[in-house]
Amino acid sequence: MEKLKALIRLEESLAKLPSVGRRSAERMAYAMLNMEDDDLVEFSDAIKNLKQSIHICPICGFLTEGEKCVICDDSERDQDTLMIVSFPKDVIAFENAEYYRGLYHVLNGVISLSKGNGVDDLNITSLLKRLDEHHFKEVIIATNPTIEGETTALYIAKLIEDKVDVVTRLAYGLQMGGNLDYTDALTLSKAVEGRRKL
Amino acid sequence: MEKLKALIRLEESLAKLPSVGRRSAERMAYAMLNMEDDDLVEFSDAIKNLKQSIHICPICGFLTEGEKCVICDDSERDQDTLMIVSFPKDVIAFENAEYYRGLYHVLNGVISLSKGNGVDDLNITSLLKRLDEHHFKEVIIATNPTIEGETTALYIAKLIEDKVDVVTRLAYGLQMGGNLDYTDALTLSKAVEGRRKL
Repeated sequence: MEKLKALIRLEESLAKLPSVGRRSAERMAYAMLNMEDDDLVEFSDAIKNLKQSIHICPICGFLTEGEKCVICDDSERDQDTLMIVSFPKDVIAFENAEYYRGLYHVLNGVISLSKGNGVDDLNITSLLKRLDEHHFKEVIIATNPTIEGETTALYIAKLIEDKVDVVTRLAYGLQMGGNLDYTDALTLSKAVEGRRKL
Repeated sequence: MEKLKALIRLEESLAKLPSVGRRSAERMAYAMLNMEDDDLVEFSDAIKNLKQSIHICPICGFLTEGEKCVICDDSERDQDTLMIVSFPKDVIAFENAEYYRGLYHVLNGVISLSKGNGVDDLNITSLLKRLDEHHFKEVIIATNPTIEGETTALYIAKLIEDKVDVVTRLAYGLQMGGNLDYTDALTLSKAVEGRRKL
């Protein structure tokens, strides 16, 4: 049977969401037909509003609805330490961990040869400007422990080494609560290499 | 950390989709932040357009984008047989099975005491009008084999018995490709009760 065009159109958008396949998109679109009109208008407006109200903090590259992000705006945070991350979600992860109290700089990308993402795709101009205007005692590079993350970390470290006292990298090692025998060889080696005195 | 209001707002709409929990809604909303602006505008418009372009066929209660639905509009279908179903998705299921070639009437609801859905919530006025204006040789009641579906079927059957030659109900029995020993007792009893001569 010929499908309704408006349903197909909606399914195509829904199928772009993470872990939504063709079949789920169909079920979702169908369920939306049974939603209240008000709920659909609200849904539609929430999408339209998303990028209009959220933008990138001009200082650090994190997401914000105000002029500066909540972190750059918080004078009680440690102004001497800067953590460089790849994406806003990394900031959220560290904030949820409630351990780190310094500032952040979000690159909004990684260097990836396979995906054709180069240095120009990173939020670096504002990083260099920031390091010139403010002296940080320590810059922690917190990109992912992947080839792309490592490449990015090395590039950034080289670029900023003369501008700060110390550049550090997150520790590699065993995962808390994990099992030694389920840990991959590379991580085990890194755990030994980075061993610390008790 | 305080969450961005525009993200929370979108998450609340996403969480209304079937089988999308709080955590999935969060991931989806975050992923949408990284979508192209054009894709978001299209998504938003597709939702807004949904109910504007799809409405209920005034004859049978099925969904349509035109004046009449594709089934009511198809003069080659068997005009003597009418199948009464609960929801548009039931029509789609029968059409996908490609067996039934008659017309449909969609109640757009079921009688459910627990949910407080009564007779007034069913698309019955147009059914009675239709039966008065056109003589059907057979009306098949195809509500779900559940308490709600059975209640609805009995109510409708009583209501229309004087207006048509025969009122029938879908057969109960074993599921094709199923196993006898995995079939519930009620279905097994119904399968024996409804046995047919070979």
